[in-house]
Amino acid sequence: MRQDSHGPIGVFDSGIGGLTVLKALMARLPHERTLYLGDTARVPYGTKSGEVVTRYSLKNAEFLLERGIKLLVVACNTASAAALPALQAALPVPVLGVIEPGARTALQRTRGGGVGVIGTPGTIRSGAYQRALEAGNPKIAVKATACPLFVPLAEEGWTNGDVPLLVAREYLAGFARDGVDTLVLGCTHYPLLKGVIAEVVGPHVSLVDSAEATAEAVAQLLEEKGLLAPASVGAPEHAFFVTDVPERFVEVGARFLGRPIPSAEQVDLRF
Amino acid sequence: MRQDSHGPIGVFDSGIGGLTVLKALMARLPHERTLYLGDTARVPYGTKSGEVVTRYSLKNAEFLLERGIKLLVVACNTASAAALPALQAALPVPVLGVIEPGARTALQRTRGGGVGVIGTPGTIRSGAYQRALEAGNPKIAVKATACPLFVPLAEEGWTNGDVPLLVAREYLAGFARDGVDTLVLGCTHYPLLKGVIAEVVGPHVSLVDSAEATAEAVAQLLEEKGLLAPASVGAPEHAFFVTDVPERFVEVGARFLGRPIPSAEQVDLRF
Repeated sequence: MRQDSHGPIGVFDSGIGGLTVLKALMARLPHERTLYLGDTARVPYGTKSGEVVTRYSLKNAEFLLERGIKLLVVACNTASAAALPALQAALPVPVLGVIEPGARTALQRTRGGGVGVIGTPGTIRSGAYQRALEAGNPKIAVKATACPLFVPLAEEGWTNGDVPLLVAREYLAGFARDGVDTLVLGCTHYPLLKGVIAEVVGPHVSLVDSAEATAEAVAQLLEEKGLLAPASVGAPEHAFFVTDVPERFVEVGARFLGRPIPSAEQVDLRF
Repeated sequence: MRQDSHGPIGVFDSGIGGLTVLKALMARLPHERTLYLGDTARVPYGTKSGEVVTRYSLKNAEFLLERGIKLLVVACNTASAAALPALQAALPVPVLGVIEPGARTALQRTRGGGVGVIGTPGTIRSGAYQRALEAGNPKIAVKATACPLFVPLAEEGWTNGDVPLLVAREYLAGFARDGVDTLVLGCTHYPLLKGVIAEVVGPHVSLVDSAEATAEAVAQLLEEKGLLAPASVGAPEHAFFVTDVPERFVEVGARFLGRPIPSAEQVDLRF
């Protein structure tokens, strides 16, 4: 398949978290059309096995591919950790995950201390961030911790106040002790909890949000391959698809995307 | 299809929560064989739509029916709320949910004050408890509240200490003020949080766990229909099936079942 610069960028996530990545993409590449698929009928991926997450990821990718995407962004850390090689092997278009760009940014930022990674149980268990960081710098000290309650807290909008602060303290107390100076937010939901996370780890720890690093990597790749969309007149189209009823996605998603989502189409994917 | 008293009782849930119902069934009906299916590849149901939950429930039921069950217990409040009529219409064996028995117990216990119901967003939004309670006593005052963070807290084993106590206070403060004297734990995960829930609502509020009421209803129905298993020599068989890899189910499930789960078989259901 030859890719066409006029095709949209495909983005998928287990649900709404990937909208933080889409937001960064829309800011960095304002002329690009996008298709976003949130697999809300099977969300979350972070507590499921790599085997099941890979199966779901391949089906999500197939749906977007049928709609003519020129590049796929896996806007979900768990799916990037579990399924990136399988997706790259199966798809005729370039596939980018969020882990490699996030790890690269962390390696640029650290001042010689350790790098911390927080994510879902699936992402941390996979060791994907640990491998990406050590591949970039074999001497790096990596401390990784799963924070399973951060996703439901972000989804419920409990992003500041006593409860998230107490939960963040339980998960993150160790990072301050261990001399970590850079912390990767290895889940697309976590930027919503940036405030409490920063409060707990303190001002000397730099927080890395993979969304912007991923958007930059997408821009570079499109440019290299001559796939950047021509400058458009007016705003390009952004379409949203979900596998469960769209109401909650449209409502909660606006908080993640930072702008209203006019509508999302429910598609009946079964796998 | 004629049912045979020798067949097992089928039980399904979105994951591990229904094991609290299975535990009550095994205590009340020690001679019955059981088949338990946890749909761990699609868990949780509580934040998904009634449409999707009904589709998943019908597929779960079909899987158990093919294995010769004589009766189906929907050991999940969300699925009972969304899918009980569809399951009863589709299945040739008796189908019981957890809502009707829980509501009946609450009506017997209340001393004229209001009845509170807590559950997942799906269960509360459906209004199923509210309808069941008002059908039993049209004068009853019902106060229902969704507690979406209780499921991840129970799954992560955060069942006592400051975090669950603070979360419970956020959700339940209103019940004390509103003169509720009976509170239905309308989600199979919530019995694990009984301690903090009781601490927040106080000793004058009676907590109703649907599991025991459902086990009693199953016993009565089997007796009425002449389907009670003959007294067995030795312990009857209990088989467990899951749709994602079994490790986590076996490990976390033991806490819900109150005894070890020797093994669970992964089945490749796609829907």
